Amino acid sequence: MIDPMEVPRFAGIPTFMRMEHTYELEDVDADVAVLGVPYDDATTYRPGARFGPRAVRQASTLLKPYNPVTDTDLREFAIVDHDDAPVVPGYTETTFEEIEDRVDYVFENGASPAIIGGDHSTTLPVLRAVADEYGPVSLVQFDAHSDLWTEYFGKNHNHGTTVHYAIEEGLIDPETSIRIGDRGGLYGREDIDRVENSGIKYYTTDEFGENSIDEIRTAVQERVEGAAFATIDIDVVDPAFAPGTGTPMPGGLTSREILGLTRTLHGLDLVGFDLVEVSPPYDDQSNSTAVLAASIFFEALCALVAAIDEK
Amino acid sequence: MIDPMEVPRFAGIPTFMRMEHTYELEDVDADVAVLGVPYDDATTYRPGARFGPRAVRQASTLLKPYNPVTDTDLREFAIVDHDDAPVVPGYTETTFEEIEDRVDYVFENGASPAIIGGDHSTTLPVLRAVADEYGPVSLVQFDAHSDLWTEYFGKNHNHGTTVHYAIEEGLIDPETSIRIGDRGGLYGREDIDRVENSGIKYYTTDEFGENSIDEIRTAVQERVEGAAFATIDIDVVDPAFAPGTGTPMPGGLTSREILGLTRTLHGLDLVGFDLVEVSPPYDDQSNSTAVLAASIFFEALCALVAAIDEK
Amino acid sequence: MIDPMEVPRFAGIPTFMRMEHTYELEDVDADVAVLGVPYDDATTYRPGARFGPRAVRQASTLLKPYNPVTDTDLREFAIVDHDDAPVVPGYTETTFEEIEDRVDYVFENGASPAIIGGDHSTTLPVLRAVADEYGPVSLVQFDAHSDLWTEYFGKNHNHGTTVHYAIEEGLIDPETSIRIGDRGGLYGREDIDRVENSGIKYYTTDEFGENSIDEIRTAVQERVEGAAFATIDIDVVDPAFAPGTGTPMPGGLTSREILGLTRTLHGLDLVGFDLVEVSPPYDDQSNSTAVLAASIFFEALCALVAAIDEK
Amino acid sequence: MIDPMEVPRFAGIPTFMRMEHTYELEDVDADVAVLGVPYDDATTYRPGARFGPRAVRQASTLLKPYNPVTDTDLREFAIVDHDDAPVVPGYTETTFEEIEDRVDYVFENGASPAIIGGDHSTTLPVLRAVADEYGPVSLVQFDAHSDLWTEYFGKNHNHGTTVHYAIEEGLIDPETSIRIGDRGGLYGREDIDRVENSGIKYYTTDEFGENSIDEIRTAVQERVEGAAFATIDIDVVDPAFAPGTGTPMPGGLTSREILGLTRTLHGLDLVGFDLVEVSPPYDDQSNSTAVLAASIFFEALCALVAAIDEK
Amino acid sequence: MIDPMEVPRFAGIPTFMRMEHTYELEDVDADVAVLGVPYDDATTYRPGARFGPRAVRQASTLLKPYNPVTDTDLREFAIVDHDDAPVVPGYTETTFEEIEDRVDYVFENGASPAIIGGDHSTTLPVLRAVADEYGPVSLVQFDAHSDLWTEYFGKNHNHGTTVHYAIEEGLIDPETSIRIGDRGGLYGREDIDRVENSGIKYYTTDEFGENSIDEIRTAVQERVEGAAFATIDIDVVDPAFAPGTGTPMPGGLTSREILGLTRTLHGLDLVGFDLVEVSPPYDDQSNSTAVLAASIFFEALCALVAAIDEK
Amino acid sequence: MIDPMEVPRFAGIPTFMRMEHTYELEDVDADVAVLGVPYDDATTYRPGARFGPRAVRQASTLLKPYNPVTDTDLREFAIVDHDDAPVVPGYTETTFEEIEDRVDYVFENGASPAIIGGDHSTTLPVLRAVADEYGPVSLVQFDAHSDLWTEYFGKNHNHGTTVHYAIEEGLIDPETSIRIGDRGGLYGREDIDRVENSGIKYYTTDEFGENSIDEIRTAVQERVEGAAFATIDIDVVDPAFAPGTGTPMPGGLTSREILGLTRTLHGLDLVGFDLVEVSPPYDDQSNSTAVLAASIFFEALCALVAAIDEK
Repeated sequence: MIDPMEVPRFAGIPTFMRMEHTYELEDVDADVAVLGVPYDDATTYRPGARFGPRAVRQASTLLKPYNPVTDTDLREFAIVDHDDAPVVPGYTETTFEEIEDRVDYVFENGASPAIIGGDHSTTLPVLRAVADEYGPVSLVQFDAHSDLWTEYFGKNHNHGTTVHYAIEEGLIDPETSIRIGDRGGLYGREDIDRVENSGIKYYTTDEFGENSIDEIRTAVQERVEGAAFATIDIDVVDPAFAPGTGTPMPGGLTSREILGLTRTLHGLDLVGFDLVEVSPPYDDQSNSTAVLAASIFFEALCALVAAIDEK
Repeated sequence: MIDPMEVPRFAGIPTFMRMEHTYELEDVDADVAVLGVPYDDATTYRPGARFGPRAVRQASTLLKPYNPVTDTDLREFAIVDHDDAPVVPGYTETTFEEIEDRVDYVFENGASPAIIGGDHSTTLPVLRAVADEYGPVSLVQFDAHSDLWTEYFGKNHNHGTTVHYAIEEGLIDPETSIRIGDRGGLYGREDIDRVENSGIKYYTTDEFGENSIDEIRTAVQERVEGAAFATIDIDVVDPAFAPGTGTPMPGGLTSREILGLTRTLHGLDLVGFDLVEVSPPYDDQSNSTAVLAASIFFEALCALVAAIDEK
Repeated sequence: MIDPMEVPRFAGIPTFMRMEHTYELEDVDADVAVLGVPYDDATTYRPGARFGPRAVRQASTLLKPYNPVTDTDLREFAIVDHDDAPVVPGYTETTFEEIEDRVDYVFENGASPAIIGGDHSTTLPVLRAVADEYGPVSLVQFDAHSDLWTEYFGKNHNHGTTVHYAIEEGLIDPETSIRIGDRGGLYGREDIDRVENSGIKYYTTDEFGENSIDEIRTAVQERVEGAAFATIDIDVVDPAFAPGTGTPMPGGLTSREILGLTRTLHGLDLVGFDLVEVSPPYDDQSNSTAVLAASIFFEALCALVAAIDEK
Repeated sequence: MIDPMEVPRFAGIPTFMRMEHTYELEDVDADVAVLGVPYDDATTYRPGARFGPRAVRQASTLLKPYNPVTDTDLREFAIVDHDDAPVVPGYTETTFEEIEDRVDYVFENGASPAIIGGDHSTTLPVLRAVADEYGPVSLVQFDAHSDLWTEYFGKNHNHGTTVHYAIEEGLIDPETSIRIGDRGGLYGREDIDRVENSGIKYYTTDEFGENSIDEIRTAVQERVEGAAFATIDIDVVDPAFAPGTGTPMPGGLTSREILGLTRTLHGLDLVGFDLVEVSPPYDDQSNSTAVLAASIFFEALCALVAAIDEK
Repeated sequence: MIDPMEVPRFAGIPTFMRMEHTYELEDVDADVAVLGVPYDDATTYRPGARFGPRAVRQASTLLKPYNPVTDTDLREFAIVDHDDAPVVPGYTETTFEEIEDRVDYVFENGASPAIIGGDHSTTLPVLRAVADEYGPVSLVQFDAHSDLWTEYFGKNHNHGTTVHYAIEEGLIDPETSIRIGDRGGLYGREDIDRVENSGIKYYTTDEFGENSIDEIRTAVQERVEGAAFATIDIDVVDPAFAPGTGTPMPGGLTSREILGLTRTLHGLDLVGFDLVEVSPPYDDQSNSTAVLAASIFFEALCALVAAIDEK
Repeated sequence: MIDPMEVPRFAGIPTFMRMEHTYELEDVDADVAVLGVPYDDATTYRPGARFGPRAVRQASTLLKPYNPVTDTDLREFAIVDHDDAPVVPGYTETTFEEIEDRVDYVFENGASPAIIGGDHSTTLPVLRAVADEYGPVSLVQFDAHSDLWTEYFGKNHNHGTTVHYAIEEGLIDPETSIRIGDRGGLYGREDIDRVENSGIKYYTTDEFGENSIDEIRTAVQERVEGAAFATIDIDVVDPAFAPGTGTPMPGGLTSREILGLTRTLHGLDLVGFDLVEVSPPYDDQSNSTAVLAASIFFEALCALVAAIDEK
């Protein structure tokens, strides 16, 4: 990582936090591989998340390595930027195979994946690779939507069906999984049943607001068992804080809330995480969404290296 | 309404929520007529609200029909998009006549008006039509400004004088009316007297913040009597959440607060509402103001159909 | 069409030029059906063209019906807005079927299609429907790219392979087809052979600049035989005039040049046209790309109704 | 004027070119009074020109005082910034009186007005003041539209009727007036008659393009007699160069063309000019429209002081 | 100050709140001199704060003179706009001298400085002038960063070292100083020591959130002794509310929080204040950052005149 | 270089054209080292060019390697991305030393520098390194400004004085140097003398427009002798095509003109070039300036490798 006291943060090639860039994980003994997944063709509204990895990396150059809240210094871990998965625009299932292969490769080389999406459909192939390595995992999902639908426009796979198929394929265990952030309108009353029947514990955004962050932390820690994967959809945050996303939903979390919420991942046996749905063409002039996403990613990364440190 | 599971929400002509479009209300037995009022020439600072109806309609295509908080399914009601009132740029009083005529027509056909402004001056002719139908009504106003001034630049009518003339013309009963959201600087101490003497009960934004939403709901429900009209000025919301407006005022409500506040309309005998001062040329790249306004409009619409359902 | 001297052009539901909206062509005896094709998942760089139909329709409300250069009055023809084809995000080939079906339906009802894309991949299914009706047609292509590649990322169909497969499938006759606008870098020398061997006559942007518009008109009119379809990729225009597009290429046509070039379609036996690759999330604050695209569309529409008038 | 070699141009209060600001012209012996007219309520499409004076002044701080093409040094003339006319939003005719009064006052104090609009309706009261001083003048109009309509939405005055009423009221002499820039669609064939019958000589944008700038200069100089007033509607320029305007019309002049065209005013007996329809909320991030408008204003100002110098 | 009931707030030259503009303080008996400091070359990330004074002045035209929360009427005080300090781009230390000279001049003329920055480096020369007048003062700092670093890129002076050198030069007394708003990552654990050892009392943003505004007010009032200077870095606010800044840091204060926090300055012996790091090129389309900054500036100005009133 | 037919151009770390990234030139036998110079503190108006290298690199990922106009295939040359020079914000002269050192290092390793600025002041230290290697060189400058001033605000070095000091220090030979693009206002008549006396041949933008590109090519080729360095200030282009720059000047070159002009460098003994003044915070939503700059850079790079090939 380039020292920001030596070289200004606006200088240099924007890998994640200006860390080492490598395609070949055999050459390095990485703790964490940061991986971009620039696919956005399975979104049901606004595209653009294909530029999410590039934007989050660029915003990450403003980050500093030491986290005073969790007392984590990223410089003590081997974190590399493993570039992007090779996606195929317009071909969702082919792309899923490419993503799964790349995450498999990360695990094969003993690293944990820290992923920048992409739309939320891309979490399914990631979870396939995760389950391949660890069996069904606990899912911790921060999201405005449950992503439990089964079909859109006659097709199974898009960014609203990910969690349904993750359960159906046995990639996650709903009984040890938790979701925080549900809000907004639904297609009908049957959507409520769908959510209730899935087995995943959840807090709506309103319920989140009625609990202290300590209570939420307890809920997360008590619910989750064994290997856990965290999936953070940036739309859990309110559009005022994260306008650059595919299906903005007003009434969401503030930046302080999402940063606090992400810190509840500390202490879990985290085996990887992704942060999805950052859509730069809809971001503001200051790239506020990317800047916030980079900070959330940093918090999740601190939780991930803490879990690695535990082992 | 087009089914969003069949046709993606980015497709199709953007009527409100892609509902049926009609100029002729005689032909349909509508419960609610959504009507645009694209007039913005009576604003004292930034114009642009003439494009408010178009922007809110476009953002509304992202909405889903079922409201899980209030258990309302809009598909159970006959809601049509009744196009826009024909306004006359640069001629405030002529425009007022056109607006009043159009709202009269809505009432004549047994529908309730759900109106997208336009600057806040346009609420005066709407209230003239409302009072024509119902006599003086209770006004529920969510607004950063009282709109109780009497004159600007030597003229009576602009977006800061609406409520003064609504009282003076006997269109609303101040004693059963309530306003929430006052904040910001004033022209002088005399403005405080003006507000106190109007007879309308009000909560400043700070006072709103000191009460729970349940306390506010009680206050609204206890204050309002008989037929009620709600007027929502988007500037009651903070510019971070709603930058696209004519006279932005920092320190306002969050998106969660305004959505909760709008739900306090449930249970009133609501005969119509308007949502004003959305100025798209000042909105952000993600159209956050329009997206939030569409969600607020949806909540008010749920309250309106609930009132219709009661009858 | 709503009279813009009566109702301001910023008012009303934004169908194309505020013309009649209908899903059912059986009910109307339309000369032209304006159809949106909101698909953008087959783009190789920036997405967003799915919002092209909505943006061009909105910008079209500023248009006036009479063309003084060609002496065409659109009010003398039956032009309807036939809404959008139902696309399936993330599934290119399924989407192609939906598009082809919809254009077939337009022809079945005796109308000519005037299409707003979408990325350039969507022209292939349109040409399938056109060839179904007319046999192989002459293609008039205004484009910065030849779209003659055969494969990207291991797949046949995306916005760079359309013309190759249109030839291979016998949808167009290269010997009576012409392309104007080639410029910019290529993947290698083999791309030049590809272009030379295709059989389509072409002018690079530089060659276009060396000829007068009259010479270009002669070249188009002499080359094209029989039924002709025009496909206009907005990226033929320079990014200064049309920034909102998927693969911007500097050095392109000015607005005056493209308007003049589009007028060279007059006199051809035009059976339809499309205008593609308008990507609103990359457009400027003034929606200049959509505004220009609406003007180009207007010129092509004038050529189309002139051809209908000839019959 | 503040010396830009001493104080950077981004510093200081943005009067026009950081020149002296005064409300009282009696106190100064001004050659030219720069006056803003922030009224935009008579536009038929996009508002925002009320912020035109502020934006052009801000962009003008980047200008340098010496014009090498015309060998004019503005420092040799007494040019003051005379602030803005007090307009009344929503009341076109009241505003017209305020504008006329203020321009009268400029003439009373021996200065020539250099005006920043505002929408094009505001030129009518300016011409009333001009005609009051000089009798009917020659009008030199650079504009995409003729502004010869008689009525919109049942009212006489808006930004499309200015020239019609200037003729009808005898403020300008059409036989010594000239207009350059007509283009785009019309409401019908009758619009062509309207233009032909007005008596004003004109060049369409296409005709402008077919002539050299020297030929245009000759045409202007030969047509115009006696006292002349120049009115420059920024929409004569193409939206690529001037996106921030009320009714953008593709196919317009380039920046080089409009600067050259404005220089054709040199040698006329210019008694004032205005530059209208700069709408900052639709301008780009670089304020390109305001920057170009400031340069055009500078060229017109050089022509104006040259005319003053002649006397 | 121009009366906003007479002349609309979008009209007129944008001095601060359209107050009197003067270079010469000898001529006026000013209570407060508003001074711009357009220097941004000492920022470590995004520049642009050089346009901060211009943007805040422009946004200030929307302000009204009476503060109902503190019962302050600015019209009762002599406040002038004293233009900008003459800075030298690329030369930090030369610029510091210019700034110090100008603030000295303000004090010499009996006025208190109210300063619009500029990046935060510019507070150092301001404090030199303040300490020259008053000796070491109490600093009240609202800021996301401590600005206690000693060196960046081998140089002492930039926007991250201001407070360190203010202590080292004896300009402020850390034992009576307080800072509110610390958050975000650090360069390492040593940064915590740096902060602890400085002697300045501080509240992190999280600690701020755990206290009521009354508790914070008490803390400020108890800590501060004698003459106090307030320095407000806009980045203490969350980027959702203030995107236009040099080093945005998510998780910050809301607009309501910063307005309340600024009001805690009332009752201190305030001798001046600055508001820094507003970077307009990164602001949103609505200029939300400038609008909020103008409101914060207004609150600080009310505290400043209250302190003047006490004397 | 990553194959764009295999991995989409929106994927991957954005080095220049996704070429190899290296700090250590000893390890590679590079023909060309692409180097960023992110310094913008010596600009006299708008900053932001510090983000130029990052933006041009990002836009360059859209480029293809083969140039059909010049028949150049970049894949036949060893081009590496050599990261950025370490600059020091706020310290112009210290930064100059860093830049010179880095360019020296490029030459020491046998590579030619292809530089992305930064503001135009940074060309001075580059030329110091160039002259160190080659003695006084011929300068080919494409620029709206002569950059021949001697002092601004009492200091010698900023972006308007570069060429003056390059002559004074003997870095360039004015008698074999040429500049194209002068236009716009000046500080006074003395500026014309300054330009005439410098010895550099020049064409104003108007003169450029009066010559064919072949005539300009001849002029360049005849004027230049021996080793040549090209410096391209993006402001030579019109703001419509390149809005993102520090001192925009209307009336400039079109994109086709600058691309043609840049190709006139072919055949010179080019030893390096820079492209400066791209200011991303002022660019448009489509990053048109960066996209055009990348294309210009590509053309200059083709000329540079052609010169290398000659040797």
